[in-house]
Amino acid sequence: MLATRDPIPPTIAWRAGRVRLIDQRELPRRLRYLECATVDELHDAITDLAIRGAPALGAAGAYGVALAASMLTTRRAVERAAARLRRARPTAVNLAHGVDLALDAYEHGGPAGALAAARAYADADVRANRALGAFGAALVPRDARVLTHCNAGSLACVGYGTALGVIRAAAEQGKRPSVWVDETRPVLQGARLTAWELGRLGIPHTLVVDAAAGGLMARGEVDLVVVGADRVAANGDVANKVGTYPLAVLARHHGIPFVVAAPWSTVDLATADGAEIRVEDRAGAEVTEVAGVAIAPRGTAAANPAFDVTPAALVHALVTEHGVVARPTRAKLSRLARVNGKSPE
Amino acid sequence: MLATRDPIPPTIAWRAGRVRLIDQRELPRRLRYLECATVDELHDAITDLAIRGAPALGAAGAYGVALAASMLTTRRAVERAAARLRRARPTAVNLAHGVDLALDAYEHGGPAGALAAARAYADADVRANRALGAFGAALVPRDARVLTHCNAGSLACVGYGTALGVIRAAAEQGKRPSVWVDETRPVLQGARLTAWELGRLGIPHTLVVDAAAGGLMARGEVDLVVVGADRVAANGDVANKVGTYPLAVLARHHGIPFVVAAPWSTVDLATADGAEIRVEDRAGAEVTEVAGVAIAPRGTAAANPAFDVTPAALVHALVTEHGVVARPTRAKLSRLARVNGKSPE
Repeated sequence: MLATRDPIPPTIAWRAGRVRLIDQRELPRRLRYLECATVDELHDAITDLAIRGAPALGAAGAYGVALAASMLTTRRAVERAAARLRRARPTAVNLAHGVDLALDAYEHGGPAGALAAARAYADADVRANRALGAFGAALVPRDARVLTHCNAGSLACVGYGTALGVIRAAAEQGKRPSVWVDETRPVLQGARLTAWELGRLGIPHTLVVDAAAGGLMARGEVDLVVVGADRVAANGDVANKVGTYPLAVLARHHGIPFVVAAPWSTVDLATADGAEIRVEDRAGAEVTEVAGVAIAPRGTAAANPAFDVTPAALVHALVTEHGVVARPTRAKLSRLARVNGKSPE
Repeated sequence: MLATRDPIPPTIAWRAGRVRLIDQRELPRRLRYLECATVDELHDAITDLAIRGAPALGAAGAYGVALAASMLTTRRAVERAAARLRRARPTAVNLAHGVDLALDAYEHGGPAGALAAARAYADADVRANRALGAFGAALVPRDARVLTHCNAGSLACVGYGTALGVIRAAAEQGKRPSVWVDETRPVLQGARLTAWELGRLGIPHTLVVDAAAGGLMARGEVDLVVVGADRVAANGDVANKVGTYPLAVLARHHGIPFVVAAPWSTVDLATADGAEIRVEDRAGAEVTEVAGVAIAPRGTAAANPAFDVTPAALVHALVTEHGVVARPTRAKLSRLARVNGKSPE
């Protein structure tokens, strides 16, 4: 693949002994970087969603271990820092995966080993996304009107994107997709991040409230739904941003393909099915306030599950860098794992 | 029915020659009244959503004609003002209905006739809602966890509410319902108005983003969905706030009853089916801004259909002041119309 200049800078990188990341809380107002000099700062950046998205969290975990290893003098302290990062958010499997990988490299190769592993992890993410984008683009009809939820773009990864990677690849192939962007309450990743990315990429897009998707489908205005994933269980069940599951049910009701695009690192064979996935409950204030403004009466109770689980039976196809798995099942994922070196539990 | 003091004041009333209404744009921050001294002021209050909700719009239309009749000296001018009010919002049938009714009274009884008709319309609304609430409460199991969307409460009517009327009536019967309140983007009527009403009524409730409903249903946390309606077509298709149709599809998918509560004035026998209902497209800024704060990149295109249409086949029951229509059909609504004096076209 030719290395062309990407209109969207890398989400996260190592720079002069610090972890430098795009502060996604500031988007779309401004493109501002956060330089994390300590593991605490990186931990807070993760919990406060300055960086989010399963593949990006994997890189953050790996770079976080490299940062710990560069600063802390005892193995015990590095391991403690790694354990803390690992727990910063529970649903995306990639965070733990990135942490474990860099920690393993540290145990064998010290600080330099951890940093090399983190860099390799980040580079592999972009390569994987470009590959899965190319595979997924085959599922995108010419002039398709694609609906996506949350942000599964470059900002959710180190670069290129997963669900948006599929759309980008289709655009690069001249298929002229246009995108319905779900705003994605409560944190508005669709409105803030996906719209920003698509604007930079020059891909036509229209923002809608999450509740509008059903009406769009009923009026025949959606050809395809493509979303990312925070964790794919061994049987193909998919945890992703809250609001994904309703889209899958609606897509099935209307006979519209529902496609999940996620790097293979998001597939967690240690999780048997969706029922085993821990869904993060976040603060109610994300619901009762928008941009710092209260939208509900003071003291209103709010529930804020950050994710939901879509049963594999509703997934038309799972796209990874190893290809397209139509109607994913435990058997199909297990076969793919044998070929690609991740052994099922 | 005993007249007990309502913890929620009337949405709209005639007061000293003006139309006085609760300014719903100010809720939940403060309970503030808007005194409309001219038809222009009332028209703007309607288009800007200071007053909204199908039954409330009916009363606004009727009072608006009374206001026009009290100020304008020629029949022609009153008719022009009525025509303008009638077009202020297109989807709710009640607005046109209230205007026509008061205009008819004006033609026969002058300004006093128009005002008497408007007052009678407003009183009838509250009576109808109390009656439909009592009928609908029979559909609410003890300790039911009821999900509702938008605001179909007292504020959407002159008083008591339709969907919330059903929940209130169930609470008054000691059934102890609790409510999942969809925030209802873009205008947040659920977060701002429904949560405010339920707080005043002392009915337990929890606010969620609209996209959370699917996950709640999948986890068995929803026993019943109750919503209002802006227009019910002759075949039972229901136009209501955008996001209603996805709830109907999800409810069907999970075997949860989906109930529509609306006064008989919302049933429009002149509209054959949902395809004939004009869905209002509102300004994109309602999507791209929340509480005056931009949430998307400058210039982002947004689509903002204010309503969607739920096919009658997904409606478990339609509750009106004339009783419960299980699985509404054209034949059932036409039979009800013959009994209740509204002849089908």
